[in-house]
Amino acid sequence: MTNFGAHRLRLVNPYKLAFREARSAVGASHVLKDAEEFKTVADAVGDCSLVVGTTAVRDRTLQHPPKKLNENSAQEINAALADGFVAILFGSEKIGLTNDDFSHCHWLMTIPTHKTNISMNLGQSVAVCLYEFARSPAAEPSAEKAELATAAQTEQITECLFDALRMSGYVKPGTDEMFEKKARQLILRMNLEAYDAKLLLGMVRQIVWKLKHEDKS
Amino acid sequence: MTNFGAHRLRLVNPYKLAFREARSAVGASHVLKDAEEFKTVADAVGDCSLVVGTTAVRDRTLQHPPKKLNENSAQEINAALADGFVAILFGSEKIGLTNDDFSHCHWLMTIPTHKTNISMNLGQSVAVCLYEFARSPAAEPSAEKAELATAAQTEQITECLFDALRMSGYVKPGTDEMFEKKARQLILRMNLEAYDAKLLLGMVRQIVWKLKHEDKS
Repeated sequence: MTNFGAHRLRLVNPYKLAFREARSAVGASHVLKDAEEFKTVADAVGDCSLVVGTTAVRDRTLQHPPKKLNENSAQEINAALADGFVAILFGSEKIGLTNDDFSHCHWLMTIPTHKTNISMNLGQSVAVCLYEFARSPAAEPSAEKAELATAAQTEQITECLFDALRMSGYVKPGTDEMFEKKARQLILRMNLEAYDAKLLLGMVRQIVWKLKHEDKS
Repeated sequence: MTNFGAHRLRLVNPYKLAFREARSAVGASHVLKDAEEFKTVADAVGDCSLVVGTTAVRDRTLQHPPKKLNENSAQEINAALADGFVAILFGSEKIGLTNDDFSHCHWLMTIPTHKTNISMNLGQSVAVCLYEFARSPAAEPSAEKAELATAAQTEQITECLFDALRMSGYVKPGTDEMFEKKARQLILRMNLEAYDAKLLLGMVRQIVWKLKHEDKS
């Protein structure tokens, strides 16, 4: 991470805490020491305005196929970095990211590899991605562009919308999980500005209030 | 390695052989199984027509500063790959390559990193380099270009030349090591074609023979 200028490590339910004492992190002990822990992906990416998930899997039944790691995706990430925090989400060494993790991502990214071995080592994947981002020129903060919604803001909308969908009978029993992901992805794809996110949240909240109110009546 | 289409691992005096049983090499067990071991760098790169050393060190007193890993150096390597074997030399995790190792390299390469941490993890360095090579388009084998000398051929010339220099009194006592490296680098920088390498070797051998002959007389 520090080789390529990344200093903020966030961990979601790390398996064990031995990593804090890892001795092999030459010149990067502060990254381990300052690593933040979170219970959920939603919490970990809360203040980020762009969340990119990484995956080796090409044929998963994804509505939106992953973008390739290259100068284009790197520039997109660097542009977002100029205006806010960007989270690059990596899964565990063994199983990678889950579909639930994916649902928190604005888009997914894959490292182009040979077909004979698409599964990459976690540390190497991180290095290769950060190398590509560092290699692409950094973008200037855009003066005119409106502030984007953070992941925490969009997650609030998702939760409210999902409540509304459940209460309204849109979500059939047993389909909760699927529709929660669908709702989250829908909101993320809106690429809401912060102002619009607040507006939309207010609207959905009111709908939820009304639905609750009708439940009681 | 296999993520980016590299399949031939060669090791010079590996510290221990436990790596052959490494279980974490998903999809790459054949690379470990087929890894070749050598006693010297010269032996390991013998059949290669281009040897590139990797280094994090920018300020070592190198006559020729390292090239940066980027599309240009990658294309140079891919072009050489179209006509023969290329060795990418990595040092040990702790000390990297030595000056003696460097002397076997046609040129050196460094991964651009942030100044705050230039020392990279070995596995990550390999991944980042191979990613960059795989990302640059592969070159077509050049039909007209003459066959290049292998490292084994240039090493033969180096040894002969060094013998000649020693016998002729050019190499002062205590400077053997330095001049052996200098001689090797000189020959490597000639980028000899195979035909010229044979020719030059013949010449230098003859000179050595003459010097030996005079010694006896």
